[in-house]
Amino acid sequence: MSNPAPAPVPMTEIWRGPIAESMHLGHAVICGPGGQIVEAWGDPNVQVYPRSSSKMLQALPLIESGAADAANLGPEQLALACASHNGAAIHTDRVAKWLAGLGLSEPDFRCGSHMPEDKDAAYALIRAHEEPCQLHNNCSGKHAGFLTVAQHLGAGPEYVEVDHPVQRACLAAFEEVTGEASPGYGIDGCSAPNFLTSLHGMARAMAFFAEAREGGSLRDSAAARLRDAMIAHPDLVAGEGRACTLLMRACKEPVALKTGAEAFFIAIIPGRGLGIALKVTDGGTRGAECAIAALLVRLGVLDAAHPSTQMFMNKVVRNWRGIDTGMIKPAPGLLA
Amino acid sequence: MSNPAPAPVPMTEIWRGPIAESMHLGHAVICGPGGQIVEAWGDPNVQVYPRSSSKMLQALPLIESGAADAANLGPEQLALACASHNGAAIHTDRVAKWLAGLGLSEPDFRCGSHMPEDKDAAYALIRAHEEPCQLHNNCSGKHAGFLTVAQHLGAGPEYVEVDHPVQRACLAAFEEVTGEASPGYGIDGCSAPNFLTSLHGMARAMAFFAEAREGGSLRDSAAARLRDAMIAHPDLVAGEGRACTLLMRACKEPVALKTGAEAFFIAIIPGRGLGIALKVTDGGTRGAECAIAALLVRLGVLDAAHPSTQMFMNKVVRNWRGIDTGMIKPAPGLLA
Repeated sequence: MSNPAPAPVPMTEIWRGPIAESMHLGHAVICGPGGQIVEAWGDPNVQVYPRSSSKMLQALPLIESGAADAANLGPEQLALACASHNGAAIHTDRVAKWLAGLGLSEPDFRCGSHMPEDKDAAYALIRAHEEPCQLHNNCSGKHAGFLTVAQHLGAGPEYVEVDHPVQRACLAAFEEVTGEASPGYGIDGCSAPNFLTSLHGMARAMAFFAEAREGGSLRDSAAARLRDAMIAHPDLVAGEGRACTLLMRACKEPVALKTGAEAFFIAIIPGRGLGIALKVTDGGTRGAECAIAALLVRLGVLDAAHPSTQMFMNKVVRNWRGIDTGMIKPAPGLLA
Repeated sequence: MSNPAPAPVPMTEIWRGPIAESMHLGHAVICGPGGQIVEAWGDPNVQVYPRSSSKMLQALPLIESGAADAANLGPEQLALACASHNGAAIHTDRVAKWLAGLGLSEPDFRCGSHMPEDKDAAYALIRAHEEPCQLHNNCSGKHAGFLTVAQHLGAGPEYVEVDHPVQRACLAAFEEVTGEASPGYGIDGCSAPNFLTSLHGMARAMAFFAEAREGGSLRDSAAARLRDAMIAHPDLVAGEGRACTLLMRACKEPVALKTGAEAFFIAIIPGRGLGIALKVTDGGTRGAECAIAALLVRLGVLDAAHPSTQMFMNKVVRNWRGIDTGMIKPAPGLLA
């Protein structure tokens, strides 16, 4: 009889009055150079979908195929390829221009449409009685990247199908960088396959991105370019008010951060060769945002007193009249 | 050394592709006549804020004080007093008329404002460049009830303060019906105190509401009138598309259902004298909606094949292109 897998551990507490009203459990792994585990909470072997936290892995073929350079993509486009953006004008204008540069247009996307999270953009659509289009999809930068690769390879238009050359290249890169054969996949919100790995595999991949240096192997250079593009453009990776953007700006040293649906979060810390991957088991985003901030504070790359840190790590919950009703804070085990 | 409290149990699984990507844990209690436990999952003694699931308890003084009859309130107003409504016109028009009947107006509320959940109402405000007012607050019916009591008692305007006669009456009713002294309170989103009880205490209270009959004691009559008002007006208790409204309509016998923030849910089943209270520990509403539907199916009061049941108990998750990507379904332990 094998030992049971470690249970998820308390990560984030939601306080109201004298008690923690709600609690988020999760798993987290910090990997160092070579992908060895530096520290872990819960079960490093838990199988996870990294969701949008794996966009920098899905963008490796964009550079490695030569497509990015052939299309003259710069750091802004590379950051957007790794982004879950707010659908603000700074995002949609750039994606639209990129798409036009390929001689393509919005119907060539296969990501679907949803209302942008950016309030100004959403209200403008509502006031104009217009529906959102696929440019507003938070994944439209990733899909522009997919289309760039597909065109470069001369492949067909259904680029989100799992046996399409674009997705086959994504899976190969994903398995090589996580260091594991992926046992399967799910379909993501944007219709692309999202591949399974262990949480350790994902943290190992993030440590690889942390160690990558331009001028090394083709893969090293590609990973370093994507990471540095994210770090250079925190506003393009997410948007105003979002955890990725605010915490990247707040860090005391260069750090790339990326959230994923269902409460996934990663960090890439190149100055220390460290990668972090965490998953809150219930899918509650507020829990993952608090936990990643706490781990960055624990490592000393984020100042606990920074206002942006406080917005996520010790968030004061205010009600509809502005009265403090409680606090979102990390479980003691993440800080000790 | 005392035994540790029972851990929360799996309640709701979020499937995507070959795995359950996320999981909600929780506690649930079903109480029968007299408040004895019929069945329980997790820890019946866990301390909880029932949040908006306790609105029918907070409305008892409205009837018992004589205020409701003095103001000629009917079942529609009583249902609104127990509601977390969508802020649609059917809700805000009735609350505005009720308030005007008291000779009061919107600034007399102490609930604060937020954008209505009803899409038509929200879009109309955005297109008119107007801000929401306190009538749109999902708790405005409860607050109209509080103001009705305050006026009837000749009490002051700050009716959400914990030592105000209205809140003292709410606490007395809460403790008597849960059968427990409340150990403390938190401030709710709408600024009213929300009192702590055990999950068993809340299920006991719901069983009392299930057993209550008009023509009995003052409290019995008050509880029966509130319960029957909720059952008569599922559209006023929540709104179109919402779990409370759709599942109340779908039940094969009269049932009152009420959600609360942070994934609380209750059910009152008068035909069987049963009350249910459940709390998903992470606060994820989708988990509580699925779990309450599963328990209602387990008891035979809701048909598993009803389309409204399927929307919450076996919800097919579709992505932005309408592709099925997974399912929200109850953990096996809730159905077995």
